[in-house]
Amino acid sequence: MQGFQIWLLALVMTVTGLPDSYYKARQAFIDEELAMRVGAKQILNIKEQKVNTFLMNLKNQTIQQSIWTTTPYPPAISFFKSKPWIDNSTIYKIIKMMPKGGVLHIHNTAMTSIDWVIKTFTYLPDVYTRVENGTYPTRLYTYSSQHPGSDWTLVSDLRARAQDPKQFDESLIYEMSIWSEDPFLAYPTVNDVWKKFRNYFTSLGGLLKTSEHYRMYFEQALKEFYEDGVQYIEIKTTSTSEEFLIQHQNFVDNFKSKYADFIGVKLIIGGRRSATNQRDIVNKTLELMKKYPNLIKGFDLLSQEDVNHWTVEFADDLLKDNQSRLPYFFHAGETDWTQWVDFNLVDSVLMNASRIGHGYGVYHHPKVLEAVLRKHIAVELNPISNQVLGLVNDLRNHPGAYLFAVGAPVVISSDDPASWLAAPLSHDFYMAFMALGAVHDDLRLLKQLAINSITYSTMTDEERAEAMTKWQRKWEEFIDAVIRQFQLK
Amino acid sequence: MQGFQIWLLALVMTVTGLPDSYYKARQAFIDEELAMRVGAKQILNIKEQKVNTFLMNLKNQTIQQSIWTTTPYPPAISFFKSKPWIDNSTIYKIIKMMPKGGVLHIHNTAMTSIDWVIKTFTYLPDVYTRVENGTYPTRLYTYSSQHPGSDWTLVSDLRARAQDPKQFDESLIYEMSIWSEDPFLAYPTVNDVWKKFRNYFTSLGGLLKTSEHYRMYFEQALKEFYEDGVQYIEIKTTSTSEEFLIQHQNFVDNFKSKYADFIGVKLIIGGRRSATNQRDIVNKTLELMKKYPNLIKGFDLLSQEDVNHWTVEFADDLLKDNQSRLPYFFHAGETDWTQWVDFNLVDSVLMNASRIGHGYGVYHHPKVLEAVLRKHIAVELNPISNQVLGLVNDLRNHPGAYLFAVGAPVVISSDDPASWLAAPLSHDFYMAFMALGAVHDDLRLLKQLAINSITYSTMTDEERAEAMTKWQRKWEEFIDAVIRQFQLK
Repeated sequence: MQGFQIWLLALVMTVTGLPDSYYKARQAFIDEELAMRVGAKQILNIKEQKVNTFLMNLKNQTIQQSIWTTTPYPPAISFFKSKPWIDNSTIYKIIKMMPKGGVLHIHNTAMTSIDWVIKTFTYLPDVYTRVENGTYPTRLYTYSSQHPGSDWTLVSDLRARAQDPKQFDESLIYEMSIWSEDPFLAYPTVNDVWKKFRNYFTSLGGLLKTSEHYRMYFEQALKEFYEDGVQYIEIKTTSTSEEFLIQHQNFVDNFKSKYADFIGVKLIIGGRRSATNQRDIVNKTLELMKKYPNLIKGFDLLSQEDVNHWTVEFADDLLKDNQSRLPYFFHAGETDWTQWVDFNLVDSVLMNASRIGHGYGVYHHPKVLEAVLRKHIAVELNPISNQVLGLVNDLRNHPGAYLFAVGAPVVISSDDPASWLAAPLSHDFYMAFMALGAVHDDLRLLKQLAINSITYSTMTDEERAEAMTKWQRKWEEFIDAVIRQFQLK
Repeated sequence: MQGFQIWLLALVMTVTGLPDSYYKARQAFIDEELAMRVGAKQILNIKEQKVNTFLMNLKNQTIQQSIWTTTPYPPAISFFKSKPWIDNSTIYKIIKMMPKGGVLHIHNTAMTSIDWVIKTFTYLPDVYTRVENGTYPTRLYTYSSQHPGSDWTLVSDLRARAQDPKQFDESLIYEMSIWSEDPFLAYPTVNDVWKKFRNYFTSLGGLLKTSEHYRMYFEQALKEFYEDGVQYIEIKTTSTSEEFLIQHQNFVDNFKSKYADFIGVKLIIGGRRSATNQRDIVNKTLELMKKYPNLIKGFDLLSQEDVNHWTVEFADDLLKDNQSRLPYFFHAGETDWTQWVDFNLVDSVLMNASRIGHGYGVYHHPKVLEAVLRKHIAVELNPISNQVLGLVNDLRNHPGAYLFAVGAPVVISSDDPASWLAAPLSHDFYMAFMALGAVHDDLRLLKQLAINSITYSTMTDEERAEAMTKWQRKWEEFIDAVIRQFQLK
């Protein structure tokens, strides 16, 4: 708040001749609003204040440039256009260094960078590929010791024939992602971009054939998330294979033996909204939760909301075992429609959901909002996902900005970052800071968001306390590192 | 609500096996939210219900098409792309027929269609033109009995030389407007589009040289607004010339002698935010208000907010004469920035503004919102203006949607419709219905918005009562006309 107060004082001092009373009333009014905001209750120590001043100067410079010139404000344009600009900024570098706590809304097959996927799996022997036509062509991959058919070609052959093998790999990377130079042209509607988005999973699926491939993929995911300042992950997965789920614990244990300050991974099983019922998967989840209470933490409903079944249509299956207290984390309100599929938000509240996935439409529902605030139902915000999947263009219009203003329980997550070539979490934190956050929202917001990700996790109180300690230690190291690296006085 | 209830009933009936209690609780929850919405208190008579059913079927068809196909939803894309589609729709035709009450936020030199401007003024004798270079070239016009200089050409000469005079006129029309085939490319930032927008006023200014030109322009404005279903207008003007202001009363009286159901015109004087102070114009407005209390109704602050002075910087001038009760209608919060120029919203509340112009950022300010609701400060929403001037892309993300959800006092207006080739009010009402309004918002919303425009006007109680009678009569005619035209049973 210090930066903001100095700035307001300067303003007041330039306007003279009026009795103080108006300015005092105005400041009191603004202060009351500021006190409501996410992060307002955080108090920064001297070191943090140093970092904050530095960070807020950078933020202010970026904003001033956008206000006074015709330089686009990075969060105001597509991530596909702003990314190079963001990656070069000092703000992003600091956010990247920052321990951001946990990611609570992530899908297991969109975690690891496509860059690593292509450079690892397509260099294995016997990888064949072909392109399937469609609105958006899909590149298929398969492993085969024999030639799988005349329309398939060895990736290694294609690469050998390419003029520039590096450029060839690049092209495979961009092609697998939903990246587009001109997303408005490429994806006129949400349904269009979801088509392309589904192709990503098809393409990747061809390369993740065996459990060994998945182990490599998942361990790399942990590494990339950890290096991006993520210490804890709650993964949404549609698999209920006990073997598949349990191996995650081994991967994580192995990872923790190398990185002691990594907190851990929990899994949330997700039914598909396209299914006719959720009976079996709900029962299976309950069974698994009883068996692995520290690993399996609840149930979600996945897939594109607009065109699939509503939560209420599964009410029978979801409410029957309510007494068993299966925690719910339904995707709800990931839509631009109001009073349609967004009624899923009402069901989340009435079915006592622990958190709301996305909750993009939540601010159109005053009673849902009231419940979110009263019952501390955390909203899992995924700003870049919502932008690239066509819900909003300028991220300052993201409804999370409203939730920040009223001090709602929110966490920032990244949904499927690999599929749009985003960092595990840093780009979304950048957007939270620069777009969902107001001009004067500062390090207290970022700190609160990191803390929230632990507070609103599915960890037990004991685990949470340990996690907070691990995060706090890294936070202090981060503050010291920024002071050192940028020689802050 | 009937359509909505039928739909929900159908849904409930398809989901069987669960105790009713969940569905009852769900419906009660939804009903409580529905009861809060703008228009919820309107009750439709049998005839209105017929029109409503017809209208809601059309709305639902448009929505279903967007949900299930890759046809863009018209309000989700730029007005410059959706306009032809909208104009062809039956919904738009009905909204055009509808008496929409008054326009409370309009600038006097962006009211009359450019089509009429070009086809009238550029056909007068001695009209010269030239193009001035700049980021966006500006076409200048001037009347001159002598050749005004070597870079000027007679418009009539250019037209004679053109292959197709009709197409030539078309090109002048589009060129004067901010219309663009690809607005994202043409206007990367808000500052860019404002540059082009200012060129419109420069261009038009050359053709509105004499008071006779202005009379023609203004009378045509009244005609176009009246034909678009607008019976009452509150105009924002920067002029304080007594002669200029008074002539409006003559124009209106003349117009009313021809159209008895036209209600009238009031003027709000606007100071420019680029000025160093507002002292003289505030005093002048007070003086004019005393002299012409039925015509001059208050004071506004105009111009692009982001790059000009804030309301608080004029506090001295604006508060000094507070005892004189000069009603304020400041533009405030016409921005994507939060905690910057949008603090103008705080000043609007603290200076007891009668209405808020735009209020785009209002939902980021919980205390401003509380004041809006408690003190019935109407928010003048201009959806298309906010879209084409770069604040929001998909109009379902317009903050007005939030205001609709909480039943805030709102009016729909059109700001500068001529400059972006929009109808006087119908296109904005279309967006209010299809985008700011939720899927199930119906004729009650439209009726409430029309009524609000009279309720929140600056008319005296007596004038308001008369206005409501005039509007009510036209509303009944409209209902009958729709039933007749579409042969509704």
